[in-house]
Amino acid sequence: MSYDQLANRLATIADLKHARGLLDWDREVNMPVGGTSARADALATLQVLIHERETAEEIGDLVESARAAGPGPWEAANVEEIHRRWIRKRAVGPDLVAARSRATSSCQAAWLDARRTNNWNSVVGKLQVVLDLTREMANATGAALGCTPYDSLLQEWEPDLTRETTDRLFREIRRSVPAMIEVAITRQPSYRAPVGPFPVKRQRALAKEMMEVLGLDLVRSRIDKSAHPFTSGHPDDVRITTRYDRTDFRESLFATIHEVGHAVYEQQRPDRYRKQPVGESAGMAVHESQSLLFEKILARSDAFLEFAAPILRRHLRRRKTGAAEWEAENLGRLVRRVERSLIRTRADELTYPLHVILRYDLETALIDGALDAADLPDAWEERISQFFGLTTGGDHRVGCLQDIHHYLGLLGYFPTYTIGAVMAAQLFEAAKAALPGLEDAIRRGELRELLEWLREHVHARGRSVSGMKIIADATGSELGPDAYLRHLRARYGSAESSELRQVPPARKERTVAGIRVRQEDA
Amino acid sequence: MSYDQLANRLATIADLKHARGLLDWDREVNMPVGGTSARADALATLQVLIHERETAEEIGDLVESARAAGPGPWEAANVEEIHRRWIRKRAVGPDLVAARSRATSSCQAAWLDARRTNNWNSVVGKLQVVLDLTREMANATGAALGCTPYDSLLQEWEPDLTRETTDRLFREIRRSVPAMIEVAITRQPSYRAPVGPFPVKRQRALAKEMMEVLGLDLVRSRIDKSAHPFTSGHPDDVRITTRYDRTDFRESLFATIHEVGHAVYEQQRPDRYRKQPVGESAGMAVHESQSLLFEKILARSDAFLEFAAPILRRHLRRRKTGAAEWEAENLGRLVRRVERSLIRTRADELTYPLHVILRYDLETALIDGALDAADLPDAWEERISQFFGLTTGGDHRVGCLQDIHHYLGLLGYFPTYTIGAVMAAQLFEAAKAALPGLEDAIRRGELRELLEWLREHVHARGRSVSGMKIIADATGSELGPDAYLRHLRARYGSAESSELRQVPPARKERTVAGIRVRQEDA
Repeated sequence: MSYDQLANRLATIADLKHARGLLDWDREVNMPVGGTSARADALATLQVLIHERETAEEIGDLVESARAAGPGPWEAANVEEIHRRWIRKRAVGPDLVAARSRATSSCQAAWLDARRTNNWNSVVGKLQVVLDLTREMANATGAALGCTPYDSLLQEWEPDLTRETTDRLFREIRRSVPAMIEVAITRQPSYRAPVGPFPVKRQRALAKEMMEVLGLDLVRSRIDKSAHPFTSGHPDDVRITTRYDRTDFRESLFATIHEVGHAVYEQQRPDRYRKQPVGESAGMAVHESQSLLFEKILARSDAFLEFAAPILRRHLRRRKTGAAEWEAENLGRLVRRVERSLIRTRADELTYPLHVILRYDLETALIDGALDAADLPDAWEERISQFFGLTTGGDHRVGCLQDIHHYLGLLGYFPTYTIGAVMAAQLFEAAKAALPGLEDAIRRGELRELLEWLREHVHARGRSVSGMKIIADATGSELGPDAYLRHLRARYGSAESSELRQVPPARKERTVAGIRVRQEDA
Repeated sequence: MSYDQLANRLATIADLKHARGLLDWDREVNMPVGGTSARADALATLQVLIHERETAEEIGDLVESARAAGPGPWEAANVEEIHRRWIRKRAVGPDLVAARSRATSSCQAAWLDARRTNNWNSVVGKLQVVLDLTREMANATGAALGCTPYDSLLQEWEPDLTRETTDRLFREIRRSVPAMIEVAITRQPSYRAPVGPFPVKRQRALAKEMMEVLGLDLVRSRIDKSAHPFTSGHPDDVRITTRYDRTDFRESLFATIHEVGHAVYEQQRPDRYRKQPVGESAGMAVHESQSLLFEKILARSDAFLEFAAPILRRHLRRRKTGAAEWEAENLGRLVRRVERSLIRTRADELTYPLHVILRYDLETALIDGALDAADLPDAWEERISQFFGLTTGGDHRVGCLQDIHHYLGLLGYFPTYTIGAVMAAQLFEAAKAALPGLEDAIRRGELRELLEWLREHVHARGRSVSGMKIIADATGSELGPDAYLRHLRARYGSAESSELRQVPPARKERTVAGIRVRQEDA
């Protein structure tokens, strides 16, 4: 009875979040510029109503009585998750919430401006305010949840994830990846670049076909264009976005496949608990594991490219241009190219984890108080040189101004990208072991079995257990770096473990208006 | 102080209605079919929250104190409008609201089915339930507001509108229009039909150009496709929809212009009261007057067609087909063609009011209890024969099953269509008198002056006074039928007043699958 009352309250909150999600989606996809202010008002009002309901005094009482009634395992997990959120949100007083909201809004605007003009000084003060308030929030939530401040930030995105686990995983990656990069770049095979430009209309048709091939049908989903690709919506109405670059079809192709990974997770969440916290995804690292499994592991594999190459050629090949460019082997070389670079979002699979670790090192130091906002440019420069032998040349737009996360007070989020990649590799290895015909099926574009395996072992478990436990149960071993490193080694060539100091000396990269000029584009 | 508290409450309601409006718009324009059920849940939850807030006990107290504080005229009008809505909504108990909601949902589904299969018997029982509950509601709201039950229905859509006014206006229309129809059909000039088909892409480009020509820019508006055209949104983000018929460009062209009329009204509402009831449009009849002023009076005039003809030709003319079809005079004959027909939504300007009066006669009799649902087919047949000399031949799909309104319990709504047309004519006559160069400006496609006149005399008054008063102030005389009849006579040829019995005897119209085959299409 009290469980039902609790669940009804959460269902109302879920409906309000559905509305908020659609208003957000529409803002990115459809809204005319004029609508900005009215939309912000409507979103703020929904946010207040959601917050009031999530932190209501009565939730605590209902949790107590629901616990006492001896609920089944899913219901019990639901009650505990509701309680955890209630504790977390109530730990932060309304004054701090309001101050942080104002500070991040102001810092975001300053960041946009600073990034445009490479004016670090204009944003550093506001960033320090955001960091101070975020540390204050982390101290409060950590105390309420019984964990360290930084762990409370991590766990906002991935329950049970700790700095200890993150350190353990990242230690092995730091140790092994730099040498792999060196080997990959040295042995890198040449390829023939397909001849563009690639009209948006054709790329859109390709994206739609890929979306359906990979398991999303248009009865329950849609694809649109936005400045930054994202996934939104409800299991029966899941919406992905992509963006198009007329000169580089990989942008839209891989953004689409990445978002399909997220969308399939959303569609395969447990039906019975759609409006309950226990029916949500396990966390952002697990979510990212699904998008990366699709985008990096699957879509860049020889098996998948053998299937996809004729589809790409059919949509994108221009008349009177070569056919060899569109062969699977050539495409594989193209999409697995490795390059040390300054920009995380354009980094390849092999160099990406070092971009994340760089940010992890900085944000843990910021939360510990070992680093101030003012120290960021130097700390960044030191690490980008150490990790990649590169320099920003003082252009912060390709350095510490490149990502929005810290300016929004989003700390503890970056690690989920690489932990997701680690999870993806461990899951895919287990799926291959469980499904002996998988590689051949992929070669034929048949993904049903893989989707079903992921549904059973990941998606349908919702948030009934932590992501760590989902991975352990699905793969038979605790989350660890081994499968990830095996995957990278198999794909990019093996090399002996080496230390970071073995990286070659810094070289300067050409930058134009903050956008790195990549070899293959030039 | 209490006024501010009241206004803040209404602003929150406005934000929730913004969210509801976007969820509705998205459902018609974007939503994959799969999303139906989740969207219905989210909308129902928003509806409950809005209703709770609109009927809250405290509103009554705040209204009392705000009144006592001696507010200025706009604030006073706002307080009274808030109070009126509060009285109306609280007059209907939650049991009746719930029963009526269930009954209309069930009846709507039955109607969709009955209309597909021409099965009147399957819906008549459910319609009677809806009518009984609607009468019960009208009795309650009428008693609370101190007016008759039917007037309380009318006033849900147009404040201060009464059956007495409606009867007075419709009396003159009944008296004059049938003879005008006879004359128009007899003297109807021939025309050359432009050669289609007209690709949707070209029609879309034309619709966008028309939208901008008529005063909507894409910074604050957008146009999309939906099954039934409508206008939605916020003054700074107003959204119109249209639909395309590849064989008949008039469908999309006039739907677009109609919705632009609504959208311009929304954009020019008073800025200061955007989130308050007093800042809303005056009512549905006044709203319809704006769409009809654009769609019927302006867009079908020789002056406008002289400007628009080259634009239509540029977008729609197919290579190797005639140019004479696209001349303004020929287009004028095409878009002003008069024909007696069975379907209201496809009726021309001259026959349309009789379709509305037919429905008005039936719905007032239904509310009075003089007619039961079971009597509708015969009553319909009698009037369609009397008004147009036509018969449905027993096909209710082109008779009493054609419109959804009554099946949703929407009574008192139909009159606003024709009262809107009457208002439009009276306003346009006044605008012409006030703006001597208007016709020449229209010929050049310059509508700025007209839009500004409408803004000042209609749009910017919001809901600070009734629609009746807006018309009287703007035109210098009470709302009456004269300008409307003058407009029709001038456009469709004059004739002496004649009685309905002079209409020629019934002829049977060909129907195919419920859609009337029109001469000009065949």
